[in-house]
Amino acid sequence: MVKALIIAAGRGNRLRPYTDERPKSLVPLLGLRLIERVILSAKEAGIREFVVVTGYRGEEVRAFLGDGGRYGVAIEYVENRLWRRGNGTSVYEARGLLNGRFILLMSDHIFNPEILSELKRCEPGERECILCVDTCMEDVVDLDEATKVRVVGDRIVDIGKDLRDFNGVDTGIFLCTPYLFEVLERNIQAGRCSLTESMRDLAGEGGLRALPIDDGDYWLDVDTPESLRAAEKLLLFKASKHALATRALYRYLNTPLTRLFALTPITPNQVTLLSLLAAVASSLLFIYHHPLPAGLLALLSSVLDGVDGKLARIKHMKTTYGGIFDSFVDLYEDLAVFFGMAYYGYVETLDPLLWFLAFLALTGTIAVSVPAGISTPTRRYWVSLSKLYRCFPFKSRRGEVDRWVVECSPASKDMRYLWIFVGSTLGQVVATLWAVAVVTNLMAVYRLLRAKLTTEHLSMAEIEEYLEKIYAK
Amino acid sequence: MVKALIIAAGRGNRLRPYTDERPKSLVPLLGLRLIERVILSAKEAGIREFVVVTGYRGEEVRAFLGDGGRYGVAIEYVENRLWRRGNGTSVYEARGLLNGRFILLMSDHIFNPEILSELKRCEPGERECILCVDTCMEDVVDLDEATKVRVVGDRIVDIGKDLRDFNGVDTGIFLCTPYLFEVLERNIQAGRCSLTESMRDLAGEGGLRALPIDDGDYWLDVDTPESLRAAEKLLLFKASKHALATRALYRYLNTPLTRLFALTPITPNQVTLLSLLAAVASSLLFIYHHPLPAGLLALLSSVLDGVDGKLARIKHMKTTYGGIFDSFVDLYEDLAVFFGMAYYGYVETLDPLLWFLAFLALTGTIAVSVPAGISTPTRRYWVSLSKLYRCFPFKSRRGEVDRWVVECSPASKDMRYLWIFVGSTLGQVVATLWAVAVVTNLMAVYRLLRAKLTTEHLSMAEIEEYLEKIYAK
Repeated sequence: MVKALIIAAGRGNRLRPYTDERPKSLVPLLGLRLIERVILSAKEAGIREFVVVTGYRGEEVRAFLGDGGRYGVAIEYVENRLWRRGNGTSVYEARGLLNGRFILLMSDHIFNPEILSELKRCEPGERECILCVDTCMEDVVDLDEATKVRVVGDRIVDIGKDLRDFNGVDTGIFLCTPYLFEVLERNIQAGRCSLTESMRDLAGEGGLRALPIDDGDYWLDVDTPESLRAAEKLLLFKASKHALATRALYRYLNTPLTRLFALTPITPNQVTLLSLLAAVASSLLFIYHHPLPAGLLALLSSVLDGVDGKLARIKHMKTTYGGIFDSFVDLYEDLAVFFGMAYYGYVETLDPLLWFLAFLALTGTIAVSVPAGISTPTRRYWVSLSKLYRCFPFKSRRGEVDRWVVECSPASKDMRYLWIFVGSTLGQVVATLWAVAVVTNLMAVYRLLRAKLTTEHLSMAEIEEYLEKIYAK
Repeated sequence: MVKALIIAAGRGNRLRPYTDERPKSLVPLLGLRLIERVILSAKEAGIREFVVVTGYRGEEVRAFLGDGGRYGVAIEYVENRLWRRGNGTSVYEARGLLNGRFILLMSDHIFNPEILSELKRCEPGERECILCVDTCMEDVVDLDEATKVRVVGDRIVDIGKDLRDFNGVDTGIFLCTPYLFEVLERNIQAGRCSLTESMRDLAGEGGLRALPIDDGDYWLDVDTPESLRAAEKLLLFKASKHALATRALYRYLNTPLTRLFALTPITPNQVTLLSLLAAVASSLLFIYHHPLPAGLLALLSSVLDGVDGKLARIKHMKTTYGGIFDSFVDLYEDLAVFFGMAYYGYVETLDPLLWFLAFLALTGTIAVSVPAGISTPTRRYWVSLSKLYRCFPFKSRRGEVDRWVVECSPASKDMRYLWIFVGSTLGQVVATLWAVAVVTNLMAVYRLLRAKLTTEHLSMAEIEEYLEKIYAK
């Protein structure tokens, strides 16, 4: 089991006024302290043992994090009294607790756990360190202050803040071997106490390997109030699953709500419950013939439905149960809203066929992604129709049209509730019910037929290959 | 790609009167000829190239099967004019078409494709054959006439019909190398022309390995009219997915229907459509206030719902689309029947809450197995609540109670429709709707809570381990 060393000793002058009252690693960001984010991100990448080096106001860090039990990890502490001399001394002080290879992290960097998952799989040589390098550099907030690197092949040949000729940036995420302590010792004795100075020595020996991070991976060094705000934006944006045009409205609506909830102790599952309450309230308002607020609450319900998952990702509170609970509640929300809409229309017309329409709408929304079991020679799969009908996506323009039809249709919950909101605002509750019922069922039949056409020419091996693309990571 | 050699040259005297008019390999069994079953079973195990040795009325076999195109395989033919001398000559005649290792099958044996899948993975030595052996022997129909084997370790040390000291039976499923042709040549020149005689020689050299088949695997040598009837029973029984007590009634109802449909060209998907028609007819009968025939048709619909899959397995017509179509139609059947039942009650009471009840019943039946996505570090899963809540099954008596509650509840479609049938027969349509709505929703909530309790203490790795047990084969 590889340990992670987190250095959290520095003063954080540049992050004032946030660091006036507390050490930098305890600065809050969307409801979690910076160092909590580092620990929870590393935990997501499978790391369970931590060594935290404290310095400035170290007792506060220690009191806050405790033994790590409430995060489900184990934390050991090392105090570095010489922290003012440079961050190399903080790494060096931890040498007694680290015998094998270890991850080295900065307490003030936020990062995508995927970066660490990949780094963990690397095998450094005995006298080697591996540094995750951002070679894209587009999103680096404060390039002037960043530590740059020059990479040739897979080697970092030079590293430093003032490098002129560079092609990457140091993300502060390392995989090290105890050999690093030898290099640090040499340098500290010579008065060169920053980590970068020792890394430059390693680079000179050919012992610093670069691991470029993927384009989609994010990281950020929280060094100034500006970068703290940038970090907030980054997390809120990266926590959105979709980045499609039609979802822009929803992102616009649920981002401020997510930000708000993140600052409170409200859990994602409680947000899911709020979403259900909004749907039930919407249903009652339809029943009592107030279509306008009813439509608004239906919209709110679907906005909240996007907040729960986002909040869970941002606050590292994702659970298996949360995902199930969300799918479960979705069903009952549809039940409530469709019943309310049908009742609204029924009171006006007394036509029982309206109930059939509502039944059809409910069934159609389920049918568009009805699950089915598929058994291949090596595995069993459970796949939804919404995944399966795309076995062979259309190419070119037809594919684009197809994508837009799916994007804007009431097959997805957020679009469905947007239709309901707009329809109710226009006073067209029954027409909206008609539209949802007809469109979802037509789409369901279309998907079914396409699943037939695409799968009937495929061998089981080809179907398995397609499914593995979806299900294997 | 390993080829399969099928010997189909014999006369089949013992199977009279079925072989009066046709060669044995063309005797029909549940809508498919014996040799078609052999080819389609082997195809399910991944075999695509066949060599068929014909003898008695060989031109009929050749005319019937053609080049194999309509089965999606390739068939080559060899004519054995000496078929009367013994089945060893039939194998020997095919030597020109078989260069590498090959599967050897009898045209009159039915068997579980799983047996062949496992055999295919074996690697015989250069001078070795592997024979699948039934060591259980409980279900062997005509033990007197069967070829027996004596197995010591993984070696067959003796083989023959009249063996006194035996511990297994020859299933007629072999994996051979071309060395077999040398042994056959030697024996045929000496006038010993049966395959068993050459196999006995191989066994004497230590070159015949036994591969015991699994307890659940079936096979049958169709040699007499009695064994033909036994084969029919075996296929109909083995095609049932469930063997649980509460499903006995359904098996009792759908087995004769499956047998009937098997003899016609009706496809499984057409049976699925018939099931939908029955549900729609049931709905209309509820609407026009005829609960008795309505309940009967609802029951018929669910019986037919069990026939389609069974028919597909028996006639080797399983497709990916068929499974999706079945799940898809199930949804609309529930929609139709619940709407009909609610309408029936509504006409009597004019109470719109009845519609809410029907909505609740429809939602509950979906909620008990609502799907949710789970993402582990290495894979994505899509799991239904009905699978997930059993992460850790109860042990002992509590588990038994749990199992029976699930078995008898309207959560499964066949039980649900049995409830509806019984309720309608008793004239209690509305009460049945109440019962289904209350019980399914209570079960859904119970499963949700249990999924919460069991998953919250599990690490992602443990959840993945559990899911792999379900999804990996």
